[in-house]
Amino acid sequence: MLHQVTLDDIEPIALGAGILGTGGGGNPYLGALHLREVMRQNGPASIVDPFTLADDALVPMIGFIGAPTASIEKIHEGNELLRAVRLLEAHVGRKMDALGIAEIGGANSMGPLVASLQAGIPVVDGDAMGRAFPELPMSVFFFHANVSITPLAMVDAGGNRVVIPHTVNARWAERLARNLATSMGATAGLACCVVTGKQVKEFGIHYTLSLAHRIGQRVLQAQDAGEDVPEAIADILDGRIILRGKIADVNRRTTQGFARGTLTIESFGANPDNLYIEFQNEFLIAYLNGEIVATVPDLICIVTDDTGEPVSTEVLRYGTRVAVLGVPAAAQLKTSAALQVVGPRAFGYDVDFAPLPGNSIGVDFRVTP
Amino acid sequence: MLHQVTLDDIEPIALGAGILGTGGGGNPYLGALHLREVMRQNGPASIVDPFTLADDALVPMIGFIGAPTASIEKIHEGNELLRAVRLLEAHVGRKMDALGIAEIGGANSMGPLVASLQAGIPVVDGDAMGRAFPELPMSVFFFHANVSITPLAMVDAGGNRVVIPHTVNARWAERLARNLATSMGATAGLACCVVTGKQVKEFGIHYTLSLAHRIGQRVLQAQDAGEDVPEAIADILDGRIILRGKIADVNRRTTQGFARGTLTIESFGANPDNLYIEFQNEFLIAYLNGEIVATVPDLICIVTDDTGEPVSTEVLRYGTRVAVLGVPAAAQLKTSAALQVVGPRAFGYDVDFAPLPGNSIGVDFRVTP
Repeated sequence: MLHQVTLDDIEPIALGAGILGTGGGGNPYLGALHLREVMRQNGPASIVDPFTLADDALVPMIGFIGAPTASIEKIHEGNELLRAVRLLEAHVGRKMDALGIAEIGGANSMGPLVASLQAGIPVVDGDAMGRAFPELPMSVFFFHANVSITPLAMVDAGGNRVVIPHTVNARWAERLARNLATSMGATAGLACCVVTGKQVKEFGIHYTLSLAHRIGQRVLQAQDAGEDVPEAIADILDGRIILRGKIADVNRRTTQGFARGTLTIESFGANPDNLYIEFQNEFLIAYLNGEIVATVPDLICIVTDDTGEPVSTEVLRYGTRVAVLGVPAAAQLKTSAALQVVGPRAFGYDVDFAPLPGNSIGVDFRVTP
Repeated sequence: MLHQVTLDDIEPIALGAGILGTGGGGNPYLGALHLREVMRQNGPASIVDPFTLADDALVPMIGFIGAPTASIEKIHEGNELLRAVRLLEAHVGRKMDALGIAEIGGANSMGPLVASLQAGIPVVDGDAMGRAFPELPMSVFFFHANVSITPLAMVDAGGNRVVIPHTVNARWAERLARNLATSMGATAGLACCVVTGKQVKEFGIHYTLSLAHRIGQRVLQAQDAGEDVPEAIADILDGRIILRGKIADVNRRTTQGFARGTLTIESFGANPDNLYIEFQNEFLIAYLNGEIVATVPDLICIVTDDTGEPVSTEVLRYGTRVAVLGVPAAAQLKTSAALQVVGPRAFGYDVDFAPLPGNSIGVDFRVTP
């Protein structure tokens, strides 16, 4: 695993996290630029092995909440996550010991590293989703450990601050935080779901920061060697390529704090296959010629066909040549408790989850070099 | 002034506050029922003369925020304002010494008395608006004393809790709190804008609880004596009757946490005069046969033509026979600083405020029996 993140690690992590983002989590490009700047001033970021955390260590999950489409037009102020952590600390009356990555996918891999350098405390190698998801309760700490989303601290670029000390349940935390994010310009910095070191060890999805890094390194290596990059990505994630083709239609709207829509991709050649995908920040379900071929929580990842770079929800556009991959999700997302929150029915699809074959994300990377 | 509020005082205060509500502040009927119940268990509520407060006493402004239309369908849980005060106290780390009435108008006159009995601390005789207004910054403590709206504490009937420690400005406090109220079902309990005893004395609108009581007593007396009740109300408030007639049209919608709309009243007789009124929770501007005859912050009060009972925004309906009164607002609302926040232009009307003649609300009642 990574023990620190240096300037050279930023590009591979951004690439890998973009792929794990399954379209959501925000475009890592701006986040990577920001991290580079902060790292130039502060040196490398410290990464802590989850299994070295003290049992009583306090770790908040942090990241940006809102519509990824908004974060392109509305540049972050830069200290949002630091300020959210400080606000949460002031509310609970205790310093946090390390920072947790709420979702490894997309820009939400970069933000916690920025906040770590600003706050002077390390980031845990791992996350709470093993990908990106659109809603707060879609976290292993909530549906496996019953950790409360609240107290929750939110700040916006302008300096507005909100604390939600308690909600009736996790749905209400999501509802209030989402509407606040909308009020704040559809993007806000968030610190919530404080877990203990013991809970991180027992329930977290481990080493996903290192996994993102490894995926990105492999993409860069395959690009340099002139290999087939989408094949290399499928290989490292034990996934499969569902379709390679051209984006033929995009229907996207930013509504209620989310980027929602649908997408059609046609394969190359004379009698093209048709892949239809629905998304809510993240790609959720894929139909190949009308048949379901991948369902949430498994990862539906879209990359450019030639260079294997992630294509996120907010940059989808007609004509882009892409490869679509299906990747088996982390095992913690596929239990019956998890599927009630992150399975197809939780998103309103009247179908059962049909897991893709292959090894799940979350392999223990401690033994790899 | 009143030194306590007993069971016998509830009806007159509800009547008077309903009239001062200028259509908003919520219908006092349910609030009065609730106060009666709580008072049966706890005895009379203690009222404190604002001029006897210690200079360093802490007084939060409390009341319900949301659309008055919602409070008819969605009965309060009953402890909202107490819980909002406790949440605010926990946040600032100090007990409050007395409770302030955010707006004397409507149900928001009753809620603080309920919370006072539940919390065991007195209510200050006075308020921050001298009527009802639709938005948080429309408070003398904000536009005259520059007191921050935040920290602000909000709770809903279900038990969700939110604290807003800081916002960039008062507009942002209003925006975030309003959207939260909408998320919470369009009505929520609020404690905010903590002022000192010194600020209450210097900037508050004094003795408006006693004024509401006196108006209500006069209405009941006039009803018993068979007098013309609207005339009696106009007399006690130094106002004038603009029109007596029948509601001919109502256009009302509950949107963005407000009850907004328009209203037409036609006078009795063969060639009726036409009175057109626009409202946003409260009645804001009145046109008689196309000419402006009353503008916010002056009070436009609608009462039933026969009994002089207040007709609030959410119970307006076709055919009701009403009298419409214009009443000079408190002097603190008519300064140039105040008019920037509560004048016609602040509500989007391209007209100057033309004050109604007569004595302003806020006369010192200490010398009256």
